[in-house]
Amino acid sequence: MQRLLKQSLVVTASLLALGTASLASSDLQTIMKERKLTEKDVLAAAKTYQPSGRKDEFVVFSSGGQSGQILVYGVPSMRIYKYIGVFTPEPWQGYGFDDDSKKVLRQGDIRGREINWGDTHHPNFTEKNGEYVGDYLFINDKANPRIAVVNLHDFETTQIVVNPIMKSEHGGSFVTPNTEYVIEASQYAAPLDHQYHPIEEYEAVFRGAVTLWKFDYAKGKIDEKASFSLEFPPYMQDLSDAGKGESFGWAFTNSFNSEMYTGGIEKGLPPFEAGMSRNDTDYMHVYNWQMLEKLAQDPKNYKIYHGHRVISIEAAVKAGALFLIPEPKSPHGVDVSPDGRYIVVGGKLDTHASVYDFRKIKQLIDKKEFIGADPYGIPILDMKKTLHGQVELGLGPLHHTYDAQDGIIYTSLYVDSQIVKWDYKNLKVLDRVNVHYNIGHLDSMEGKSAKPKGKYALALDKLSIDRFNPVGPLHPQNHQLIDIGGPKMELIYDLPIPLGEPHDVISIAADKLKPQVTYPMGTNSRTGKQHEAMTLAGQERVERKGNEVKIYGTLIRSHINPEHVTVNKGDKVTFYLTNLERAQDETHGFAVSGYNVHASVEPGKTVAVTFTADEEGVFPYYCTEFCSALHLEMMGYLYVKDPKKKYESVKELKLQKMSKEQLESEYKKVIATNKATDDVIQSVVKFLKDKNYAKYPKVKSLVEDALDQYGKIGEVKAKADESYKKGDVNGAILWEYQVWQYMVKTADVGLRAKNNLAKELATPMKPAAQKGEEAYLKGGCNGCHVIGQVSSGPDLTGVLSRHENAEKWVFDFIKNPASKYEEDYVKTMINYFNLRMPNQHMNDQEIKDIIEYLKWIDENAGLF
Amino acid sequence: MQRLLKQSLVVTASLLALGTASLASSDLQTIMKERKLTEKDVLAAAKTYQPSGRKDEFVVFSSGGQSGQILVYGVPSMRIYKYIGVFTPEPWQGYGFDDDSKKVLRQGDIRGREINWGDTHHPNFTEKNGEYVGDYLFINDKANPRIAVVNLHDFETTQIVVNPIMKSEHGGSFVTPNTEYVIEASQYAAPLDHQYHPIEEYEAVFRGAVTLWKFDYAKGKIDEKASFSLEFPPYMQDLSDAGKGESFGWAFTNSFNSEMYTGGIEKGLPPFEAGMSRNDTDYMHVYNWQMLEKLAQDPKNYKIYHGHRVISIEAAVKAGALFLIPEPKSPHGVDVSPDGRYIVVGGKLDTHASVYDFRKIKQLIDKKEFIGADPYGIPILDMKKTLHGQVELGLGPLHHTYDAQDGIIYTSLYVDSQIVKWDYKNLKVLDRVNVHYNIGHLDSMEGKSAKPKGKYALALDKLSIDRFNPVGPLHPQNHQLIDIGGPKMELIYDLPIPLGEPHDVISIAADKLKPQVTYPMGTNSRTGKQHEAMTLAGQERVERKGNEVKIYGTLIRSHINPEHVTVNKGDKVTFYLTNLERAQDETHGFAVSGYNVHASVEPGKTVAVTFTADEEGVFPYYCTEFCSALHLEMMGYLYVKDPKKKYESVKELKLQKMSKEQLESEYKKVIATNKATDDVIQSVVKFLKDKNYAKYPKVKSLVEDALDQYGKIGEVKAKADESYKKGDVNGAILWEYQVWQYMVKTADVGLRAKNNLAKELATPMKPAAQKGEEAYLKGGCNGCHVIGQVSSGPDLTGVLSRHENAEKWVFDFIKNPASKYEEDYVKTMINYFNLRMPNQHMNDQEIKDIIEYLKWIDENAGLF
Repeated sequence: MQRLLKQSLVVTASLLALGTASLASSDLQTIMKERKLTEKDVLAAAKTYQPSGRKDEFVVFSSGGQSGQILVYGVPSMRIYKYIGVFTPEPWQGYGFDDDSKKVLRQGDIRGREINWGDTHHPNFTEKNGEYVGDYLFINDKANPRIAVVNLHDFETTQIVVNPIMKSEHGGSFVTPNTEYVIEASQYAAPLDHQYHPIEEYEAVFRGAVTLWKFDYAKGKIDEKASFSLEFPPYMQDLSDAGKGESFGWAFTNSFNSEMYTGGIEKGLPPFEAGMSRNDTDYMHVYNWQMLEKLAQDPKNYKIYHGHRVISIEAAVKAGALFLIPEPKSPHGVDVSPDGRYIVVGGKLDTHASVYDFRKIKQLIDKKEFIGADPYGIPILDMKKTLHGQVELGLGPLHHTYDAQDGIIYTSLYVDSQIVKWDYKNLKVLDRVNVHYNIGHLDSMEGKSAKPKGKYALALDKLSIDRFNPVGPLHPQNHQLIDIGGPKMELIYDLPIPLGEPHDVISIAADKLKPQVTYPMGTNSRTGKQHEAMTLAGQERVERKGNEVKIYGTLIRSHINPEHVTVNKGDKVTFYLTNLERAQDETHGFAVSGYNVHASVEPGKTVAVTFTADEEGVFPYYCTEFCSALHLEMMGYLYVKDPKKKYESVKELKLQKMSKEQLESEYKKVIATNKATDDVIQSVVKFLKDKNYAKYPKVKSLVEDALDQYGKIGEVKAKADESYKKGDVNGAILWEYQVWQYMVKTADVGLRAKNNLAKELATPMKPAAQKGEEAYLKGGCNGCHVIGQVSSGPDLTGVLSRHENAEKWVFDFIKNPASKYEEDYVKTMINYFNLRMPNQHMNDQEIKDIIEYLKWIDENAGLF
Repeated sequence: MQRLLKQSLVVTASLLALGTASLASSDLQTIMKERKLTEKDVLAAAKTYQPSGRKDEFVVFSSGGQSGQILVYGVPSMRIYKYIGVFTPEPWQGYGFDDDSKKVLRQGDIRGREINWGDTHHPNFTEKNGEYVGDYLFINDKANPRIAVVNLHDFETTQIVVNPIMKSEHGGSFVTPNTEYVIEASQYAAPLDHQYHPIEEYEAVFRGAVTLWKFDYAKGKIDEKASFSLEFPPYMQDLSDAGKGESFGWAFTNSFNSEMYTGGIEKGLPPFEAGMSRNDTDYMHVYNWQMLEKLAQDPKNYKIYHGHRVISIEAAVKAGALFLIPEPKSPHGVDVSPDGRYIVVGGKLDTHASVYDFRKIKQLIDKKEFIGADPYGIPILDMKKTLHGQVELGLGPLHHTYDAQDGIIYTSLYVDSQIVKWDYKNLKVLDRVNVHYNIGHLDSMEGKSAKPKGKYALALDKLSIDRFNPVGPLHPQNHQLIDIGGPKMELIYDLPIPLGEPHDVISIAADKLKPQVTYPMGTNSRTGKQHEAMTLAGQERVERKGNEVKIYGTLIRSHINPEHVTVNKGDKVTFYLTNLERAQDETHGFAVSGYNVHASVEPGKTVAVTFTADEEGVFPYYCTEFCSALHLEMMGYLYVKDPKKKYESVKELKLQKMSKEQLESEYKKVIATNKATDDVIQSVVKFLKDKNYAKYPKVKSLVEDALDQYGKIGEVKAKADESYKKGDVNGAILWEYQVWQYMVKTADVGLRAKNNLAKELATPMKPAAQKGEEAYLKGGCNGCHVIGQVSSGPDLTGVLSRHENAEKWVFDFIKNPASKYEEDYVKTMINYFNLRMPNQHMNDQEIKDIIEYLKWIDENAGLF
């Protein structure tokens, strides 16, 4: 083992060093021909490809639609980094399978009914002055009207609030410019009293509403008590946006059934879709949340429904806080411009986008100039007088997103399957790009904030049909990336969405996110506080109280403490587990066979899983993460005894015992192995120290992890020595194997540290050396020679100092090896390796380049 | 609308045509500099990038680990196409949220306990002669020992079987060469009687086992009754593989605790990991499933546990069907070579891979030459005598996969974080590549089958640490793609896994998969048969029987039939829904607000959702898929009445009624709109027919979908006319709007068809024309000119036939527009558009190219 350990260090480092500069053996033209790529394809590839380890510039959060989750991907690489469990249980993350996450999920139950999914629609970040802040993310559930809060410091869901008055929603979650409120607008109208009413009472009793959820930033939680709603007519409200800049304090909500049509296909009436599309215009609701906030302080302005304040239409109208403006037929998006002055609405059954000017709206409101009132008494503003203008865009304009360049906007066309780039100030179409197919929402980078970043746009296509390898009747949707950096939009990437039907995305500059990579020891990630059951090394225990059994355990590479737990049938069993690791990415998982519990335990986290041990028997528990080479061995047994039964002991199996001599011999062997392994570790440590590893943060954190593992050896070694002293040779052997386990883990991380350091330290290769390496590899020289070690041929490190006039000697030898077969040195080598150096027919330039490569090797010889 | 519809057709087609040949405005060098890409990065990008619509060559199925799902991705693009719900409910697919999928999921309950997750490990395809067949996929659950069957014709899970004797498993699911059996080997030993036994009885009572699940290929189902198991000693069995070729009939299962160490850290004993790694060798179990199949026919050879036959070790040994061979310390992978002769085992705590020669094994067995027996009486073969040889590979060799080239194998090194390419016949290391980091399983294309395809390898890295944008303490894992086509392995792509901790993958040539894209009408996808509740158009109804209410409904763009359903509180309500669409990707979803049910209803599928209406009130139901522009309108209401309550009717809201004249005027308007829209549709139809659309399969299927929508108009139009005749003008208007809805849907698909056809028909652009288009776009000509239509400037189609000596005229005009401002034609244009053609300062070559581009436009004028 120790020999290989040493050898491996050498090989790894050398390959790594080679790897960084080696040139690929095939050229671009060949690849283009083979893969039938056009020049345009290659440019698109180069615009989106991320080399290993390179980070993306933007991070996108996408709703997962009816998957009930959020997905996170990078731009421009279009690689999905995470699905976050929000409304749907997700066992990998332990979400809904450990006690603390179950509490979050169960906050979302509706009047006692367990809800285990959601139809997520619109994600939104916390904001300051209308700009995105990467602290929290909000997302709504259309099916079961709810809002969830995701903590972006660990990408976990920490809160779900149920809308107390709605039966359905859509226009959530929209955030006011300083995250004062999270806005949630209803969709399908229903009686707010939650009672039965026939459809004939639609106009009289069914209502829409908008809920203003108060966000307590310091706590990172929605304050339900401080939240309130505003009653709306039953117009089927839709998307919403908060004003900003000069429209600060106001908010805007669309609607699409101002006809108040109530369908009835089963009675021979035309379906909803016919009657809801009848009028040429619907209504945009314009309301002032700062005024509503004041109204909500006075009981005369609101009714209490299910413990929640709902401001009446009447009170809002009276206070001048609610107005309607006609908007193009069945609108979808309502998007406030970065400066807050314009509000752009696409009427999905109109062909125009309409640009409203908030200044004009405000003037009409201030002058109290209305064209009338709707049946509910809400003043209606003259559409034409509020418009800056309209632009004919095409079929099915839905949503809008803004560019970094002032006045530029992008609109999705559902029927035309296009994105249109246009100027909303000068009302002029600038460019179009086809997408595949039937685009819903779209985004540009931070394009819905007060400071859009431009560069890329995303098309959220609803149908993908022929785009991808077929995977059955349920197709992935297609998120297409569009380069909007130039004058002409260019489609550069197709991303299939493997799970969920995303509805909307929101993007943020990657550097605005600062997630932690480990938790402070003992954290309950769902509360952000120290877990009541945090257990440190040495505190492991089992506590019993009546039929409740609480196990306080720990996890570390690669054992669970305790390894055996016995309970009685019917006991309520809770495992509390703390992951003692401090190294990034050293996650453990925990499952008990057949008991439907699972936890993901990242470094520093404390989790709990509770179940009733209702079946007699023996149940293995284990770490579900492939956390180390000894991962499979990280297990234990839960024994469930039936207290009513008598158990007779079973006859033992007779096994041969080891003799004292055999034990002594094994003990010596393991001691020797450990000594030799330690020598290798020390040599790695010396290398790391000599090269000042602490200067390189990535290397430093690896070394710290390695030393952490190494630090555990002392205690275990003491146990081994103590056992040996007591004459328990078998015990001593076992503890020595445990010493070896820690050494393997130390070596595992130490090697990664050394390789990283070597990569940092190697001198850059000059072009000639790079070409030389390419020739060396193409020529198959590496078949016999391994840099830094003797292989089927001699080590080439130092070859240029082994001969007089070495460069010429090496040149001649490569050029014509046979010419030197009779030289003493070469003869010796031939005898030793039983191989002759063959003629690889290199040309002169290649040989010269190889010599440059050999020089580079000698420069970096200490690293191999 | 109709004007825009026409205009949009033109713009769309023209842009599409442009799009296919336009050159990107930025060049590769600039992008490389901006994005800091090396030449090697660009080559890797070109090797992996898939242009929009291009399909992948291989499809990979990956276990999702403790996500309980399977993920499907493409090689070389490394894009994830689907997550398939297997052991965990997944609402997007309706899996576990509709009745029929719930039945599948509940098959996996363990002795009455609901299990809603799994720890998936090893996916495997159906096989014929050891080669992969893309019909079914099997996957195992380590935590709750089970096997699931996934139907690859629709990528849905159709069966879960629970292992009747195990408490934990790992070595599943491995398939015999003609899918006779699916093999499942236990992991953590436990008493087969499922009763309590203390750890002291480990050797005497705890057991491992291997279950041979019989697969009924015709039914696509595991036949539980025809399946049986073989008892194993409590050695913690691990991975398994079936023999093939000359080892056909045999199977091989690893183990890692032949020490039978039982841990006890909580009692002060060394942990499992120490004692399980003590011996230098463990045991490979070698057994013959053909012999076992015969033994399982005779009750004297087996015991019945929980209704399942378990062949005793004794009977298997007696029949010469079970042997042990020592194998390197704590092995992981056991992988049979494509020809079946060699079995390669990596001892994860050894540094070697060991190559066993089946011929040698067979000879020893035939000669009954054993070195002894284990404590359970199983004959042990001499390790050295069975070995072809061993090769020192490095630290932590785990798994193996084979190359298309005979004798070549790839092995993962967990601790060294490398893949090693070596020759298992000549026992020689050939190449190494670094991966990031700590690789578990690996794969090469079809690399574990009898006919490996080579080309690409996949590294399943367990830690990704610094590879990706940070997303909290729980990192994605990293699947890295390696080009193994050349002599030197090259790492070319990093794929973060956003959900789950994949354990193993299996790959198949994409053309071996033939999934359907729609279902035969009325299919129950979980049984593959016609659903008992299939409902066709016109058959919609509500049936009541006691407190059971069954709704037989249909779904089609964009309404649900029925739209109103009233039930009593406490009723058990079932919605049966058939998606009447026949077009690919026209999936509908179905949810009832707050009742925790969801279904995904792909074209042709019939689904059922059942719930108890236990809360009074009004509950919207709706289509959860963004299925058309009218998607939001696809909804209905469920009314839950409390039969014990008396409801008083609420006063109606007084709304203004429309006058007869107003109604007549609206009726005329909608008739005119529909007529004009239909004219546009007819022009599209004419274009499609004139150009023989039926010759192009993709276009043909779109046209069929469009005509399908169009075909629905007749019936609706008749209703409108009938209403009008009866004097119900309001009804007539509504039905005419429904006519318009179908027209919009026809246009939606028709446009896609026309654009596709235009793309097929356009002549290829010559390089000069391509350059011309680029110059045209760079010069901003498209700001005023839109090909095929009059915009802010004249349509340029036919410009070369509008002037005498036109090429010269156009050249001169572009070169110096002012020189022609006084020409009559130009004067007229300037007056008409109120704009002067500006000088864009094109050079002569650019102008010549633009003229070539204009020629191409004229050639294809009919398409715009």
